[in-house]
Amino acid sequence: MHTLVTNMMAGAAALLVVATAAAQEPIQPIEPPQGLDAGMVELGKKLFFDPRLSKSGFISCHSCHNLTMGGGDNLPTSVGHNWQQGPINSPTVLNSSYNVAQFWDGRAADLAEQAGGPMDNPLEMASSHDVVLTVLATIPGYQAEFEEVFGDADITLERTTAAIAEFEKTLVTPNSRFDLWLKGDENAITEQEKEGYALFKQKGCVGCHNGPAVGGTSFQKMGLIHPYETDNPAVGRAAVTGLETDEFVFKVPTLRNVELTYPYFHDGAVDTLSEAVDIMAWVQAGQKLSTEENESIVAFLKTLTGEQPSFTLPLLPPSGPDTPRPQPFGN
Amino acid sequence: MHTLVTNMMAGAAALLVVATAAAQEPIQPIEPPQGLDAGMVELGKKLFFDPRLSKSGFISCHSCHNLTMGGGDNLPTSVGHNWQQGPINSPTVLNSSYNVAQFWDGRAADLAEQAGGPMDNPLEMASSHDVVLTVLATIPGYQAEFEEVFGDADITLERTTAAIAEFEKTLVTPNSRFDLWLKGDENAITEQEKEGYALFKQKGCVGCHNGPAVGGTSFQKMGLIHPYETDNPAVGRAAVTGLETDEFVFKVPTLRNVELTYPYFHDGAVDTLSEAVDIMAWVQAGQKLSTEENESIVAFLKTLTGEQPSFTLPLLPPSGPDTPRPQPFGN
Repeated sequence: MHTLVTNMMAGAAALLVVATAAAQEPIQPIEPPQGLDAGMVELGKKLFFDPRLSKSGFISCHSCHNLTMGGGDNLPTSVGHNWQQGPINSPTVLNSSYNVAQFWDGRAADLAEQAGGPMDNPLEMASSHDVVLTVLATIPGYQAEFEEVFGDADITLERTTAAIAEFEKTLVTPNSRFDLWLKGDENAITEQEKEGYALFKQKGCVGCHNGPAVGGTSFQKMGLIHPYETDNPAVGRAAVTGLETDEFVFKVPTLRNVELTYPYFHDGAVDTLSEAVDIMAWVQAGQKLSTEENESIVAFLKTLTGEQPSFTLPLLPPSGPDTPRPQPFGN
Repeated sequence: MHTLVTNMMAGAAALLVVATAAAQEPIQPIEPPQGLDAGMVELGKKLFFDPRLSKSGFISCHSCHNLTMGGGDNLPTSVGHNWQQGPINSPTVLNSSYNVAQFWDGRAADLAEQAGGPMDNPLEMASSHDVVLTVLATIPGYQAEFEEVFGDADITLERTTAAIAEFEKTLVTPNSRFDLWLKGDENAITEQEKEGYALFKQKGCVGCHNGPAVGGTSFQKMGLIHPYETDNPAVGRAAVTGLETDEFVFKVPTLRNVELTYPYFHDGAVDTLSEAVDIMAWVQAGQKLSTEENESIVAFLKTLTGEQPSFTLPLLPPSGPDTPRPQPFGN
């Protein structure tokens, strides 16, 4: 018994050391969400995959936030209704609940507010909230599921976007090799990756890319030291605040799973992580990296790929006789 | 012991009666596939969901054969590259391994041949087989998986389409209520549904819609007795055979899961099952159905909805540094 207690105390002390070490790092492990409403999650999953939220019946949330490939679309900018070219790179939905606000310019306060945006954006899903609510309210399976989840069959935009947000909160990617290292497994990452992390801190990257999501916690100017050259017309946070000082200020993206979320930056102009790291070092920190430094930082960034969401593809309830039909072509 | 043996014999006799009854029906239960190559299925599932098989990086097999909603796209005709309007209704991929041939006009002999079609069709995925093979061959994860599945890392069109076909063979929907009834559960369908099935046979529908897939076994003229009016220019089987007698002859579609695969017919012009049943009775059998007959047949058809494929959304391997990038916009 005495030995057991001693061992337990030693174990607790070791845990304390590890916990303290992790807490001292500017990046913390990301953890699966707790306390979500399982019914809302399942409803939200269906809505996330449902192309009937778009005018065409062809575009769903999942079209541009594709969970088979890192929660974005791996395109510079997205394809919208009638093949319109989107204005900005689709940010990953993975770990997006950790963002201080949503969209590159932070114009939505949270995931639910964000979810309402693309549906009635003529460049994206090109429907309207009224039509979306009529569509959902005329699908018997959704009527039943809203009633089950919310207690009555009233299908509102607030409930619809709340359910989508609840599903999106599940899209967290824990147990990356870097997180295992943060939690005390010294061998979870290589010497080169550790060196990359040291450089990531030393060069100042952690000034913006910190916290559990390695970003998402602040807005920062793109091109702080040297200008970032782009043809993309997005003005960033200034579109929301109207402040000149917010021009070219964007939400700092998460670097979790960055290996999967190419191409990079708000304009999606950069294909490789190696190139992206060199550009960031130059425009944000005014530094030229050696090849070795670049490789080490890239190696570190790849340790941030976590366990991807794993779930059964949802089955959508069929339309009812009165459900407005999609209009992919014509007006 | 004597009682047990007697019961077993009685049970065996009952099973024999049921088996005989099912065998005498023109429709047979559909069964999950046996003996598939599990590795090929998993590889094929990834390829089926991978939009990098298209020029845009936006369209995958799953875009128009969406397994969240019955294996089609629930649109009259599909959306292709650059939002081009497809020429014909996307047939469900569910139970498609039971088809005598693939496409509405049967121009592909089997699922593998079909799978190669949309990739390099300028109206659909708009890539080319050469580009697709280069894309796949430069994705490290696919290199490894082809090697694991086929014994070497040679990525050919034949292997690619064979893997997609192997996955598609899993997309069978057993245990519909009608199948349970066929197998002897008298209470699996209602009196109205039984009446509908009796009418379905009596009116001659089973002449074409028979076998385990309730269709898919033959080509038939659309508008056998009365012409079917449509703006759709498809000529049907004549495009393959060059025979005048094959004009407006199409592959008989499966009626499995027909509740989910609206809108109906090769032109996708008809939204409801009720309307589709009336039209078919008229143009194929020269009969006007009473409201009650129509409702019974529709009720029967809805018993053909089986267990939908249930699987974990696949995770796609990320592109490598040399992987050609998608070209959603411009040339």
